[in-house]
Amino acid sequence: MGTGQLATLIFQGFNGKIYPVHPKESTVLGYKAYRSIFDLPETPDLVFMVLPTDIVVPKLEECARAGVRAAVVVSGGFREVGKAGLEREKMLVNVAEKYGMVVIGPNCIGVSNFHIGLNTTYFPYQQDPGDITIISQSGTYSCHVYGYTRKFGMRLSHTVSVGNQAVVDLIDCLEYFAQEPRTKAIALYIEGIRDGKRFVKVARETSRKKPVVALFVGGTKAGAKAGMSHTGALGGDNSIYDGAFKQTGVIRVNTVEEMLDAAWALATLPPPPGKRICVLTNAGGPGASMADSCNREGFEVPEFSDELKSHLREILPHTASFSNPVDLTYFMDLQAMYERIPKMILESGEVDGIVMYGVFGSLLYRTLEEGLGGRIKYPIEQVVPLVRELLKNFVSFPEKYQKPLIVSSFWGTEDDALKDLADNGIPVLSSPERGVRAMAALYKYGSWLRDNARV
Amino acid sequence: MGTGQLATLIFQGFNGKIYPVHPKESTVLGYKAYRSIFDLPETPDLVFMVLPTDIVVPKLEECARAGVRAAVVVSGGFREVGKAGLEREKMLVNVAEKYGMVVIGPNCIGVSNFHIGLNTTYFPYQQDPGDITIISQSGTYSCHVYGYTRKFGMRLSHTVSVGNQAVVDLIDCLEYFAQEPRTKAIALYIEGIRDGKRFVKVARETSRKKPVVALFVGGTKAGAKAGMSHTGALGGDNSIYDGAFKQTGVIRVNTVEEMLDAAWALATLPPPPGKRICVLTNAGGPGASMADSCNREGFEVPEFSDELKSHLREILPHTASFSNPVDLTYFMDLQAMYERIPKMILESGEVDGIVMYGVFGSLLYRTLEEGLGGRIKYPIEQVVPLVRELLKNFVSFPEKYQKPLIVSSFWGTEDDALKDLADNGIPVLSSPERGVRAMAALYKYGSWLRDNARV
Repeated sequence: MGTGQLATLIFQGFNGKIYPVHPKESTVLGYKAYRSIFDLPETPDLVFMVLPTDIVVPKLEECARAGVRAAVVVSGGFREVGKAGLEREKMLVNVAEKYGMVVIGPNCIGVSNFHIGLNTTYFPYQQDPGDITIISQSGTYSCHVYGYTRKFGMRLSHTVSVGNQAVVDLIDCLEYFAQEPRTKAIALYIEGIRDGKRFVKVARETSRKKPVVALFVGGTKAGAKAGMSHTGALGGDNSIYDGAFKQTGVIRVNTVEEMLDAAWALATLPPPPGKRICVLTNAGGPGASMADSCNREGFEVPEFSDELKSHLREILPHTASFSNPVDLTYFMDLQAMYERIPKMILESGEVDGIVMYGVFGSLLYRTLEEGLGGRIKYPIEQVVPLVRELLKNFVSFPEKYQKPLIVSSFWGTEDDALKDLADNGIPVLSSPERGVRAMAALYKYGSWLRDNARV
Repeated sequence: MGTGQLATLIFQGFNGKIYPVHPKESTVLGYKAYRSIFDLPETPDLVFMVLPTDIVVPKLEECARAGVRAAVVVSGGFREVGKAGLEREKMLVNVAEKYGMVVIGPNCIGVSNFHIGLNTTYFPYQQDPGDITIISQSGTYSCHVYGYTRKFGMRLSHTVSVGNQAVVDLIDCLEYFAQEPRTKAIALYIEGIRDGKRFVKVARETSRKKPVVALFVGGTKAGAKAGMSHTGALGGDNSIYDGAFKQTGVIRVNTVEEMLDAAWALATLPPPPGKRICVLTNAGGPGASMADSCNREGFEVPEFSDELKSHLREILPHTASFSNPVDLTYFMDLQAMYERIPKMILESGEVDGIVMYGVFGSLLYRTLEEGLGGRIKYPIEQVVPLVRELLKNFVSFPEKYQKPLIVSSFWGTEDDALKDLADNGIPVLSSPERGVRAMAALYKYGSWLRDNARV
């Protein structure tokens, strides 16, 4: 496993130095290997330990004596396996305290900081760095999701698998990332919180600075039991956690996908100032789905004023729907769709945000052209730069009007226009309903901020 | 648009004859074009009409006189645009009735039958045919989803965009697909049902033969309004629809993704005979998420008997969790994971179904090998055939034990093992929670079947 995780680090293009330590090998994956931490030419900033359980604590102490002040301990066999493990974990904590070491784990998968190509999990992250940080009591959720985020275009800043939290716990990480400048939103996966009082304090302080989303699975009998055998975490009464999240502005979600969706929207968009949502679409079904979801999530889809409707009527063909949902049907004026209409609606002041369906780049046309071996030609080379230009403006609307704009599509970054949006701060969620749900997370956060502004 | 849709038909490899009819062109996309329907060398089985609104009815009548008995009318400008359109639609209905024509639409996107390469929507379907049929009051949901289903590996049999339902409505389609042998599950997208009584009758008859899932968006104020302007459908009281679905065994869902997930599970798996679910995983986080979701969905995650636990203990290493959730942690014995353990659990009779996380093919290792330019070698060539062989057995378990087995993964068909599963009737859903939710849809259907068996 150590070699596998080193492979990820190399894959990721880590831009610092790497020194493998191995009892027998003279090189590992092409890097000169050292017999012991004492043999390295310099003191490393971080030691990453994948060792048999029994030698973890003595090796950690060696590292400490060699001057190392930070370690990630991947090895398992501690608190999570019962009494003997708990004893071993206490010894690990003693070493950390004695030498003032920062230790992540044990029983974790690793940490990532994509801004410097640091990825010690065993999954490669094949995207540019972003601004969402995941702090997780599950190693899986800190790394198996990279393929998923890539597919949809959401980008991560850091991930931490906190493991058994022997020294550094989830709350410490939360406190750290509250002030870490590249993190714009924090997603927490929680099986149980040990120090509830401190969580509430830190979470509240953090929410004032940046949004926090939490997936808590320990509130049901089965979820709590699973968490206990996983990381030794104590679940707890669902309503107590619920109350703590509400109090502290932490947006609670019930699924991993909701967690990622909400974190994406929260990291990149301003919250809607109110509950009035515009549904903008060029397809009736997604329009109706978004409208239905808006009501389910407590949003209004207000009828537009006569003035706004008459402005829209000037732009749109007679087959379109001018009110709310605005449905362009087969109207293909891209400038209207991506620029004039959203602008007009945002400037009207009649809504607090837009959920949208209907952005398409060239994927469909390229696929057909290719499939038909050139028998059909679409004006791809003309339309692609035009769409790109229009979307440049489009992606600036949330910032300019201080109102969120969320797009949904059944496609992801395989389409150029959707990738453009994702790369420029517009969440592209994989169904109309998920777009609305992410909008609801944004609304909740904005609403908490208004109620909890510092005096 | 007509040319675009013809392009899809060609792309799809339709295995019948195609005759373009065009007033001016002598060829269309390489096919000889005809001036009029009367000029064709034979009477076509189906006419697909993309014409200016005004000439639709006269051209439909020409087709009828030429002996055509089935048409899909894509053109809009009928009931959905108000009074004049409604008049036009009545004329269309008169023609259909006069000549005994089956007409889909108007204002629809088309129909697909992937078994014969018929796809008259403008989206290419790049998969093998499957056994799920979508009948939709939204054209979008009958075709924009093809890229999405391909990503995850669920496969479609037919799709019908019913449009304004002037002649053939959603209920007629339901009745037809109830007896269409290649359709194993039916997904309905509904904005409103005109003839509730008939719907209840047909839906109940259909549910007895095969499962039906429905996404109804007309139960909220905004959803109903959107549906009205989209297809002129009348939404209705949410609780009335809810009651009708419950009564008739139709599984109601609230999002498009849930609709597709549920249809996939229902098409390929037997319903669980009871509420006891085994959570099987090699990763703690997804295990806890699935356990938590099980309880939320009303399932039990029962503790195993001492006997079953001791059998599991013989196979698993000490770091694993032997109870339920069964967490293999880093245990890499593929035969145990894909064969011995699920078999043992299903044979025990202690659970009614399994939700699972942890199937991985070679994608991860291929990516790393490639990224490291051969500096690392994984035993891919040995493991791939082994996994494939093991999965052959694995995919037969639901049928053999008459209990469902649902897998979740953050990856889709880009991974060989997950594609293998999807291709062989195991739904691979994109998050642990969605796996459990699809299991809940299965449970609901099975439970209705037991209560509504014909005496």
